[in-house]
Parts: sequence; structure tokens; C-alpha cells
Amino acid sequence: MTDRGEGEFGAVLDAQWSVGNRLHGGYLLAVLARAACESPAGAGHPHVTAVSGTFIEPPEPGEAVARVETLRVGRSVAQVRAALVQEGRIRVESHITLGLLDDTGPWWSAQEPVELPPEQDCFLAPTNPPGTDLTVPLMAVVEERIVPEHLSFAFGAPTRAGVIASWQRLADGSDWDPLSLLVALDPVPPVSFDLGLSGWVPTIQLSAYIRRLPAPGPIRVRLAATDVGGDRMDEVAHVWDDKGRLVAQATQLAAVRLPS
Amino acid sequence: MTDRGEGEFGAVLDAQWSVGNRLHGGYLLAVLARAACESPAGAGHPHVTAVSGTFIEPPEPGEAVARVETLRVGRSVAQVRAALVQEGRIRVESHITLGLLDDTGPWWSAQEPVELPPEQDCFLAPTNPPGTDLTVPLMAVVEERIVPEHLSFAFGAPTRAGVIASWQRLADGSDWDPLSLLVALDPVPPVSFDLGLSGWVPTIQLSAYIRRLPAPGPIRVRLAATDVGGDRMDEVAHVWDDKGRLVAQATQLAAVRLPS
Repeated sequence: MTDRGEGEFGAVLDAQWSVGNRLHGGYLLAVLARAACESPAGAGHPHVTAVSGTFIEPPEPGEAVARVETLRVGRSVAQVRAALVQEGRIRVESHITLGLLDDTGPWWSAQEPVELPPEQDCFLAPTNPPGTDLTVPLMAVVEERIVPEHLSFAFGAPTRAGVIASWQRLADGSDWDPLSLLVALDPVPPVSFDLGLSGWVPTIQLSAYIRRLPAPGPIRVRLAATDVGGDRMDEVAHVWDDKGRLVAQATQLAAVRLPS
Repeated sequence: MTDRGEGEFGAVLDAQWSVGNRLHGGYLLAVLARAACESPAGAGHPHVTAVSGTFIEPPEPGEAVARVETLRVGRSVAQVRAALVQEGRIRVESHITLGLLDDTGPWWSAQEPVELPPEQDCFLAPTNPPGTDLTVPLMAVVEERIVPEHLSFAFGAPTRAGVIASWQRLADGSDWDPLSLLVALDPVPPVSFDLGLSGWVPTIQLSAYIRRLPAPGPIRVRLAATDVGGDRMDEVAHVWDDKGRLVAQATQLAAVRLPS
């Protein structure tokens, strides 16, 4: 990422972070959040703590500009607007709150980590899902091991519970951090697959909160839908670190094609 | 609301929609969403379907400007940025997605409406909560009847379950609509009260989805926290209409003061 001054950062969008021929939404938000952290607002506020993104037009892999405008710098938070621009058009625009995270556990928590079978008993998501002509390059950089029963849609028998849960690691062995957690919060496949719906589920808006610094090791991710109707679906994601603490959460509203 | 052209709308922020001396966050988002609907992007996309707001500096009651910029107008959605400006400073900035809602029930749903005692057995939230010097003018325009046990914090015995649920009606007898639901999604008191925490809980970011048009009659609102730590709390709100259908949902990240 190149600081061009005046709040503009040059970025190269890497096709490796794609699902089919679309760049992954969480990756795009991570690019914007990185620019926010490197902007003047990031001084003293090194971590992304909240991101809301609105997805306007899919960007292409290659050069893009992240345009960061400071809205407010306070004592404990800094707030910016960050837009991803390509060919002069805003493709994704976000509001990002920066702050200082630590690895202290919660003072109070309502939610236990999702229970998963051991990592080695889960199914490693492939870059070329069998029975499809889709390629998911993202699955070569994120190792995602999905609960086997949550993949029963692949055999024509979706559970229809509306939940897909997984273990996730970064394939290069690096530890999770607040930026990469933005990728984990927008998991593939979408939970609509577990409802018997195939096809693309483009995100309209996504909001993510990073709650604390993750411990080294794999993370556990639970993705669930609440309500599907009117060609819209919500997806709610929770992510726990290897010590069982909630480190990140997100909601998104996505478009979905329902059987007529 | 006055259309001043060039995407600027004059608004008068009404102190009636306040908690203490602060204007209510959901009300401020409703003002922005109304401006979005009245902007050119609202033509053919009459309803707000998603709003993400970042709260920068509290505005004062009185004149303000809602500045709307169209980001994209598509077939089924229109996306705008809308900023609330006072004294030349952005106080709240939002991304708003507009579309066309109907009152069709869900194709699939994971969540039953919250179970509440009958409306008349719940406790009408007062404008002057006993034992405090706080006034809540909002409670004169929103009739909120809270589940009695969720108010046990008022007697020094919070349940610590992290849930506050209520019936809500608009005091003037009008029916709920997508704009007023934005107010319902940010209920008072904050759920931190049920965790034994008193004091102000300023919203940092809030994201709301309006899922369908509400039926006439009261709504049921469930507000819950997931995780509290690092001086931050999330609050998750679900709203069901009188026919038991989910009509709106929201998450917010708020600042909270924890005992040291």
C-alpha cells in the first residue's frame, strides 16, 4: 500500500482473494481498514474496531485507490470514511472506527463458542468445489474446515437449520489479526446453501466489530441466518479465538434469489 | 423537511426525540433516511432497507442540514451517503440502501418472536424514571411497555441476563413504518442497565435492516448484549410486528464504562 498523500493510498487488489471472479467483500474491507490505520487517524488508534461497508459496484483485481477522510479523532476512538475507488468510481465505501484493542477477555458474555468437531474431523473447503464449475481462489489463502453435516447441501440434503460453522487458519501460517478477521467474518459458502438455495449472494451492506486481539491458533466461525424473504437474507457471524473468546462479530444484508 | 436542491435538505431536529439532553440515535438516522427517500435516489425505491450510521458528534435540537449523495441507483436498490450537518460539521454520517418493501412474511425464519407478558402487564417507561434526575422526553412520543422483570435493575437487582424486551407503540396512535422502526431499534434503557451498569452508553456505530412493512398495531422489541469488555458493548435488537413477523433488526457498538 502506497501513501500518495492527501488521504489517498494506492493498493493492488489481489485476485487470490476471490470467490469465482469476484473479490471477497471482507478482503475489500480489510484493504480499506489498512488504509485507515495508515492514515493520520491511525496514530494512537492502531486497530480497526468497527467497519460498516456498503457495496456499490464490484472492483476488478489490479490497481485501486483507497481514499480516507478523517471525520473525528478523539481520545479513545478515531472515525474515518474510506472509499475504494477504481476508474474514478467508488466501488465500496465504508465508515471505520479505530481504537486500541488488547487481549483481555470479556467482562460479561452471553455466548459460548460454537461447538465444533475436532479440526481434523472437519472438511477442508476446496478451491474447486466438486460438482460445480466455480473456483474459489480464497480457499488457497484461508484454510477453512467446515463441520461435515453443514456440507450436506453438497449432497442435495441441506439441513435447513441455517448455520454453517468452521475452523479457520491462514494458509501461510500467520496468526489472525484485526484486519484478517474481517475476511473470516464473511465466510464462504453463504449460509443460503444450507437452506437449499444455490447461486450468488451479493452483499449489500456489512457491519463488523473487532472486539479484542485474537490469541494465536485457529479461530472458530459460526455463520447463521435469521430471516430470509423479499429476496434478502441476513447473515450473522461470530468468531472465537483459540482461547474461546469472542474476537469478532458481523452482520450483513445480502441479496438472494428465492424460488418463485 | 425542505428540499434546498443539490442534495441538501433542511431539517429541524425536535428535542422531543431526546434521552436526557441528547437526541436519540435512531431518530437521527430516521431524519437521514427520510432525506434519502425524498432525494432523487428515492424515486422507485420508496423504503429504507438498510442503514449504517457512524456517530461523530452529538447534534443539538434545532436546524440542521441532511446532505444526500447518490452512490448508485440500480433496479432493485439505490445506495446513498447521507450526512447530518450542523454548524458546518458532520455530526452523523450514514450509508443508506433504499428499495421496495412489502408485507409478505418470511420464506424462512430462524427466530420466533420474543415471548412477552400481555401489554397491560408490562411497565410503561416513564419520562422521569424514579430515583434518577434524568428526563426522557422520547418516552412521551414512544409508548414503551417493558417486561417487569427486566426492570429489576431499578431495584438494585439486575437480572444480568443481558436482555430487555418491550411492547412499543407510537403515542400519537400512528402505525409503525420503516422510518419510525429505526427509532424502535435503538431502545431505551440500554441493556447495560440489566447488567448492573448505569450511566451513558453512547453509540459508536449502528446498523439497521428493515425487512418488511409492519402490520398495524404494537411491535415487540428484544434488545440483547452478546459481549461486554474493553469499555465496549454490542447491542442486538430484533423487532416483530403484530402478526409475529420480523420487521427490523439492528446491531450497534457502544461505549460503556466498566467497573475498574
